Amino acid sequence: MAADTTMRVSVLRGVGDVVMEQRAAPRPGPGEVLVKVSAVGVCGSDTHYFDHGRIGRFVVEQPLVLGHEASGVIVELGSGVTDRQVGQRVSIEPGRPDFTCAQCLAGRYNLCPNMRFFATPPIDGAFAELVVVHQAMAHVVPDTVSDEAAALLEPLSVAVWACGKGAVSAGSRVLVTGAGAIGLLCVQVARALGATRIAVSDVNPARLETASELGATDVIDARTASLAELGWSPTVLLECSGHPPVVAEGIRALAAAGRAVLVGMGGDELPLPLSYVQEHEIEVTGTFRYANTWPTAIELVASGRVDLDRLVTSRHGLEQAPEALAASRQDPAAIKAIVHPGS
Amino acid sequence: MAADTTMRVSVLRGVGDVVMEQRAAPRPGPGEVLVKVSAVGVCGSDTHYFDHGRIGRFVVEQPLVLGHEASGVIVELGSGVTDRQVGQRVSIEPGRPDFTCAQCLAGRYNLCPNMRFFATPPIDGAFAELVVVHQAMAHVVPDTVSDEAAALLEPLSVAVWACGKGAVSAGSRVLVTGAGAIGLLCVQVARALGATRIAVSDVNPARLETASELGATDVIDARTASLAELGWSPTVLLECSGHPPVVAEGIRALAAAGRAVLVGMGGDELPLPLSYVQEHEIEVTGTFRYANTWPTAIELVASGRVDLDRLVTSRHGLEQAPEALAASRQDPAAIKAIVHPGS
Amino acid sequence: MAADTTMRVSVLRGVGDVVMEQRAAPRPGPGEVLVKVSAVGVCGSDTHYFDHGRIGRFVVEQPLVLGHEASGVIVELGSGVTDRQVGQRVSIEPGRPDFTCAQCLAGRYNLCPNMRFFATPPIDGAFAELVVVHQAMAHVVPDTVSDEAAALLEPLSVAVWACGKGAVSAGSRVLVTGAGAIGLLCVQVARALGATRIAVSDVNPARLETASELGATDVIDARTASLAELGWSPTVLLECSGHPPVVAEGIRALAAAGRAVLVGMGGDELPLPLSYVQEHEIEVTGTFRYANTWPTAIELVASGRVDLDRLVTSRHGLEQAPEALAASRQDPAAIKAIVHPGS
Amino acid sequence: MAADTTMRVSVLRGVGDVVMEQRAAPRPGPGEVLVKVSAVGVCGSDTHYFDHGRIGRFVVEQPLVLGHEASGVIVELGSGVTDRQVGQRVSIEPGRPDFTCAQCLAGRYNLCPNMRFFATPPIDGAFAELVVVHQAMAHVVPDTVSDEAAALLEPLSVAVWACGKGAVSAGSRVLVTGAGAIGLLCVQVARALGATRIAVSDVNPARLETASELGATDVIDARTASLAELGWSPTVLLECSGHPPVVAEGIRALAAAGRAVLVGMGGDELPLPLSYVQEHEIEVTGTFRYANTWPTAIELVASGRVDLDRLVTSRHGLEQAPEALAASRQDPAAIKAIVHPGS
Repeated sequence: MAADTTMRVSVLRGVGDVVMEQRAAPRPGPGEVLVKVSAVGVCGSDTHYFDHGRIGRFVVEQPLVLGHEASGVIVELGSGVTDRQVGQRVSIEPGRPDFTCAQCLAGRYNLCPNMRFFATPPIDGAFAELVVVHQAMAHVVPDTVSDEAAALLEPLSVAVWACGKGAVSAGSRVLVTGAGAIGLLCVQVARALGATRIAVSDVNPARLETASELGATDVIDARTASLAELGWSPTVLLECSGHPPVVAEGIRALAAAGRAVLVGMGGDELPLPLSYVQEHEIEVTGTFRYANTWPTAIELVASGRVDLDRLVTSRHGLEQAPEALAASRQDPAAIKAIVHPGS
Repeated sequence: MAADTTMRVSVLRGVGDVVMEQRAAPRPGPGEVLVKVSAVGVCGSDTHYFDHGRIGRFVVEQPLVLGHEASGVIVELGSGVTDRQVGQRVSIEPGRPDFTCAQCLAGRYNLCPNMRFFATPPIDGAFAELVVVHQAMAHVVPDTVSDEAAALLEPLSVAVWACGKGAVSAGSRVLVTGAGAIGLLCVQVARALGATRIAVSDVNPARLETASELGATDVIDARTASLAELGWSPTVLLECSGHPPVVAEGIRALAAAGRAVLVGMGGDELPLPLSYVQEHEIEVTGTFRYANTWPTAIELVASGRVDLDRLVTSRHGLEQAPEALAASRQDPAAIKAIVHPGS
Repeated sequence: MAADTTMRVSVLRGVGDVVMEQRAAPRPGPGEVLVKVSAVGVCGSDTHYFDHGRIGRFVVEQPLVLGHEASGVIVELGSGVTDRQVGQRVSIEPGRPDFTCAQCLAGRYNLCPNMRFFATPPIDGAFAELVVVHQAMAHVVPDTVSDEAAALLEPLSVAVWACGKGAVSAGSRVLVTGAGAIGLLCVQVARALGATRIAVSDVNPARLETASELGATDVIDARTASLAELGWSPTVLLECSGHPPVVAEGIRALAAAGRAVLVGMGGDELPLPLSYVQEHEIEVTGTFRYANTWPTAIELVASGRVDLDRLVTSRHGLEQAPEALAASRQDPAAIKAIVHPGS
Repeated sequence: MAADTTMRVSVLRGVGDVVMEQRAAPRPGPGEVLVKVSAVGVCGSDTHYFDHGRIGRFVVEQPLVLGHEASGVIVELGSGVTDRQVGQRVSIEPGRPDFTCAQCLAGRYNLCPNMRFFATPPIDGAFAELVVVHQAMAHVVPDTVSDEAAALLEPLSVAVWACGKGAVSAGSRVLVTGAGAIGLLCVQVARALGATRIAVSDVNPARLETASELGATDVIDARTASLAELGWSPTVLLECSGHPPVVAEGIRALAAAGRAVLVGMGGDELPLPLSYVQEHEIEVTGTFRYANTWPTAIELVASGRVDLDRLVTSRHGLEQAPEALAASRQDPAAIKAIVHPGS
């Protein structure tokens, strides 16, 4: 296994500064597996670190490997690993909670204070040939799920979690504000959950067209129309834009007893329409990543209810990571760039 | 409106004894509407009253009009009706709770102790040219929903309610025991809610074939196979057979933390597998009709997620009510007979 | 019953202008009862109408009878009333929903768009000798509940509802911001529900002392201390102050997965700490009055878990309504003024 | 630490055969702590193993150390233990899940298929001077909680879990069938959660008297009275007797939409009153141990809401384990025997 003694990684050293490095290959510890990375999706947060060197309180102060939407093949088992085998294709859940704190024991491991999350300073991500993950976070995928789709189970998990927080169910009327990758996945998951009306708003016509193709029943070009023109009252708002005025407008569009799920990140504060929220007993909830979503996400893709391959708009080798990170800036029709570390 | 002074009704006078009568046309009271009946589905309970003159503690002691799955057109408004108009096509929700008891105020009007329910002694049903219902129970349907489908929103509501009690959602693995009309509707609703594995068991191969066409991923011929052979553990049991041994077997098939919803009626007592229920923390719940399901049911049909027309296997005039009531006994492939009082 | 042909009422004609009038006595309609009013609590909203002539979009444009926290004795039954009797002592739930809209049928009658609520323009309240209410809104109280306590079941209901929205339960750690009547009731209800730590913040030392006597484990004088000094993280915020900066500070004090319930009214908008809400998956919910709370509220008082009589700080005849309305302004230790229309 | 090289244990070798042994002292592994045992409560399951050598499918096939209700003092830390210190007084949660299976990650570690539980063949329990537990299962208790109370947090957890499954809250009307230790703890927890009516049934008058002292509002001597004589309908049944006829009778006593929680173990099958469960939409749930209950249980005891010391009816040294195991058989007033391994 000489090939495993070193590996190539793509490293962010500063704003706009991504270079290739050769590093020692990692080895799996107890309960861990070593995964040869097949595909890595580029997330808006990767691009944000690339462009700005920070996201809120998370600052890139030392070289950081980006990428947290990843799939691969298990190539080595750590001691005590009994539930996984070498050769299995896996989707990587990119967080490593401590498993035993109060939040973890309560089933909310996404809120674990000791979480170590890929591509979040100072933890390295998956723009690398090899990564180590805990076996519980290496989810085996069936052959019907492509490598790229297996990587994109991560953003799909964000949408599954958001729809769960919104209690989307049969007959829900859903408003998705923001038609980026997460918004488009919310459309698909909401539809899979029985939502019968799904409106999507964005300022990008190409994205709205994609939204329609993926199941949106109404689209709103936010450059020229307001949410109030929708004609029906949503019962659930899945806010994926992160723009404070949109959040407030979206909440004001909700039906009584509606739920607003704040997925998009948009700074530290937001004007909440208090009297509207009170008089209509709106529930507003923030979401932070996800917990226990992979089994559902895998089933949704394997059963054909959600199409992840449809979202891939460009493919890149590891050396082209900078191009992948810039793809969404350069092409308004871009949705998801994929890096293939092995190619 | 001379035609409204009398109407034809089909009356059950005793076991197997159904005759036509001419009766005074009813008039809508305050808050009520008069509906000219378009279509009425025949339910197993109608057939049971026809065959046995009783269901449990409900005994036919005086002439009874059967039929509680009905649609029609509003032909007259009672005083104070402001939310409905003459000429609207409606699906009839066949219960009239008192609206103000503790159960009603809590949103559980199906448990109202003063409920007056169609075709349940001594309340007459919809095998009639005209019926009166409260405006809140006359649900307007869009043109895309046929008269027959509008009638079958009632059994669909049973399935929507059952799936809700079972918390069926994305990634649920559902077992439906019994593939009669309710079981087949549970398959469709479970699928619409994101269930990715749906197994159906029955002793009737024709029904199992229909189940497959409607979205079941696995079928089990209960004459030759056991639920234990399924190969995966359901997270939800929707019990629609009413056969006590099937209920127990179905519960024992559930995954830990699974939910069992008892829809099928099967007598007064049932052997509950106590230690299994305890060690796996199974939740078992009974269902009684439904509450607040019509809006969802209408949306599911109007959006094409559920196909009700597919279930209709015979059509009859009001005079042919006895044939309609006997249809399921005579044809193993029969699913749903429809009576058209106006034809 | 000649005495019933007219009655005395206290009427708000404009800002600060309350006068006595003689009016025709009301008569109960179908399903309604006539109640001789025993006691009426003065709410902050009554005082606000008295001082400002409006609350947000509700404007006093014609003479208005204030008072919506009321108890009394049934003196006459309308037609069809079967569940109540003349002579019963009742606590009045001061809203009259339509009972049959979608919100009512779903158990959320507080969100009924056709709600007619006491002392909310243009609906008159209970500063009167007699009022008419629907029988379902006239809750019979046991003899162990005093007339004044029966009136104060209304604000207690607000607290019961708030604690329910906050899912307060055994081991909850609760922060109540604002120690007015509602805040003090939230303390008592939270304690009755098993909350083991209950912190209360206010700028009024007298109120904080009362909070301690009623079960608060920690008090915070907001003039000199911040919520961050509490030393433990609340799992539930019951916001009863209505001051926007307090709301934001309270939310930032919450533990991960905490719940914030916005009870206090404080204008149209509020700065929501978005990133905190997201990273900690805080649920924020508005409350609007209550639904189905009276049975619980009665039991809490009858069983001695909640002490309502303790909150009464002044008593007034109907002619002294202006003094009652001004009581809280003039005495910092005032909590609840009671008007006795019959004395 | 020479004293730690061996320890005394009390071992069950067969039916009625308990002897003292000297064994090598255990050492804490990574993430574990070594606890010097202070107090161990005797559970009905311990007595059952002592009397019958088995409980259902769990058979004592090799020497077994009994006892799973335990408290003690940390005397040694395993590697990597950062959240605990030597000298801390702890209550032991006697199960060791794998922490990373799907059930654990979902917050249901009580359903972990790899659970290793004290005093359940072949896992040894706490009738020993020393035990090793994972740090997450060693819950630090404040000084106000006695050693015996700290041990009895385990059965209290069963009651906390049961009340949670029953959604006991303010105004709940609770029926507890069976007034053994668990039933008596259910009474206290239900009261702490705001239940205002709590009926208890048993055949033992001494236990019923204790139930009254601990907060029961009604007691039913099951030798002479039936649950139907209660006079009010419970909304929650906490079934702690394990007697099948009592379960069915208890369920039939429930109000519509009531919940039945099956805590008592009573064999493999149970006659479920199906039609009652259906017509009243009763939810029936089994409970299996508990999850995430210790923090709440500690708070309930530390705040004085629950009195555990009151339940202790006899105390024994480790050599007197047989007497402790037989205590409940010999004294009808016995509730909880405690073994002190260090005395």
